[in-house]
Amino acid sequence: MPDRPVIRNRQHALVDRLRQLGRKRTADDPAVLLDGWHLVADALAAAARLDAVVFSTEVAERPEACALARACDAAAVPVFVARPSVFEAISPSAAPSGVVAMGRRPEWTLAHTAVPVPGLVFVAVEVQDPGNLGAIVRVADAAGGTGVVAAGSGADPFGWKALRGAMGSVFRLPVVRVPRPGVAIAGLRVTGLRVLAAAARDAVPIEEADLRGPVAIVLGNEGAGLPPEVAAEADARLAIPMRPGVDSLNVATAAAVIAYEARRQRKRPAEPGRRSGGADRHATTMTPPAD
Amino acid sequence: MPDRPVIRNRQHALVDRLRQLGRKRTADDPAVLLDGWHLVADALAAAARLDAVVFSTEVAERPEACALARACDAAAVPVFVARPSVFEAISPSAAPSGVVAMGRRPEWTLAHTAVPVPGLVFVAVEVQDPGNLGAIVRVADAAGGTGVVAAGSGADPFGWKALRGAMGSVFRLPVVRVPRPGVAIAGLRVTGLRVLAAAARDAVPIEEADLRGPVAIVLGNEGAGLPPEVAAEADARLAIPMRPGVDSLNVATAAAVIAYEARRQRKRPAEPGRRSGGADRHATTMTPPAD
Repeated sequence: MPDRPVIRNRQHALVDRLRQLGRKRTADDPAVLLDGWHLVADALAAAARLDAVVFSTEVAERPEACALARACDAAAVPVFVARPSVFEAISPSAAPSGVVAMGRRPEWTLAHTAVPVPGLVFVAVEVQDPGNLGAIVRVADAAGGTGVVAAGSGADPFGWKALRGAMGSVFRLPVVRVPRPGVAIAGLRVTGLRVLAAAARDAVPIEEADLRGPVAIVLGNEGAGLPPEVAAEADARLAIPMRPGVDSLNVATAAAVIAYEARRQRKRPAEPGRRSGGADRHATTMTPPAD
Repeated sequence: MPDRPVIRNRQHALVDRLRQLGRKRTADDPAVLLDGWHLVADALAAAARLDAVVFSTEVAERPEACALARACDAAAVPVFVARPSVFEAISPSAAPSGVVAMGRRPEWTLAHTAVPVPGLVFVAVEVQDPGNLGAIVRVADAAGGTGVVAAGSGADPFGWKALRGAMGSVFRLPVVRVPRPGVAIAGLRVTGLRVLAAAARDAVPIEEADLRGPVAIVLGNEGAGLPPEVAAEADARLAIPMRPGVDSLNVATAAAVIAYEARRQRKRPAEPGRRSGGADRHATTMTPPAD
């Protein structure tokens, strides 16, 4: 890879900026750090805006690095190489892959998450593990979801670990952060979604619930589940059937099971008489007008 | 919590042992470290063998600590309290919960994973993230799986992070580690299981595959997927349908989707003419004897 500017020391402004994004990114920072071959390639393929791509000199002569650098050239993205000691300072990963990029956070709003109709939105409340949050974004995308809301003060959905977990899905699927879960739920309901809370008790099993209309699925965090005030806001409660003795699932695996049950239901025609997973509260609004 | 021995310094032999289990447990160590309220309570409820439970003095007067200590007394498990500075040295967690236990690894073999018949075994090949491995154990248990094999040189299924991800499932569901994936697959096939490899290409969609008989589902790691030589060992390949553009899922979410599809199929009666997900290779062994 000839003729690329070399970053030789850690005092370089780009090194500073990337370190800050990888270690202490603030939630309102428009920039994001992308770490790893697959993710940087996905970003280029999705025409996401990238401000810089940095390779370690250790990998810069590999054919895949040269190919990725040419794709950057085609997209007018500046390419740098960094000495291994500098690259290790840049990459937040314990096992640096050899390529990072600085990109821009996609600018989505809550309303974007619920389209196209019928919306299928996953609301992750106070999810602390960024890997879980990224896995939720990826499985929501795979199953045909329309968006993901990271609600509360949990992991940053645009932090490097969450982005690495989400892979290219973060450039396709609207993902927004809403600090107050109640505000997110109220906003989605105004948008016309039924709000279904994943819960272990007093809940409709997922295969008996109707997941075909516009719905928001609210999921709690890894330790505590859903806060009671959030569960109370829901139109209905949804349970994943489990073998006796198991009382909860990892939040990303729970999202996966519900997402694929929704996908299965949405692929088949409506069945009259199916139990509605939560239209009850708004039953009167379902009545067709008299004229 | 009166009358419990207090550990006042880091030179205590139990501190040494617990630190070693939390930071550099060797794969053949019969002891394990359990970190967190839920997991220790699950272990007691499952009558798992515990050698010691240690509370931080910061939490020792809480009602839940006193209740857990009484449960330890009933099971003849020694209870200690440790000064906060000592407890922080013991707990491998960045945010110590206040309780850890030293327990014994359950002694299972590969054959245990495939019973009761029809076995449903998840083989996680070279899975690096212990949280993912634990989540696979938990969702396999929840969906009615019979066991999990951690194959290759990935994360330790009995390390503290994997145990915390698996929760009480690790005391119910047989989990074994097999260093060579090919040996695990051959062993499961001898036990009578069809071996289905999760793959993106040339694969039968999960809803068209027959997951009702004894099957082993082989899953690859987070970055590389299944090694080709492992995929070639399989009787058939299994695909999770995904929206175009998405080419893979996080390994724990993939396990969740397949586990719940298997659960759904196993709850309904057999349908003649359904595509078999891999009986072909062993078709002749399926013929009933002539007499």
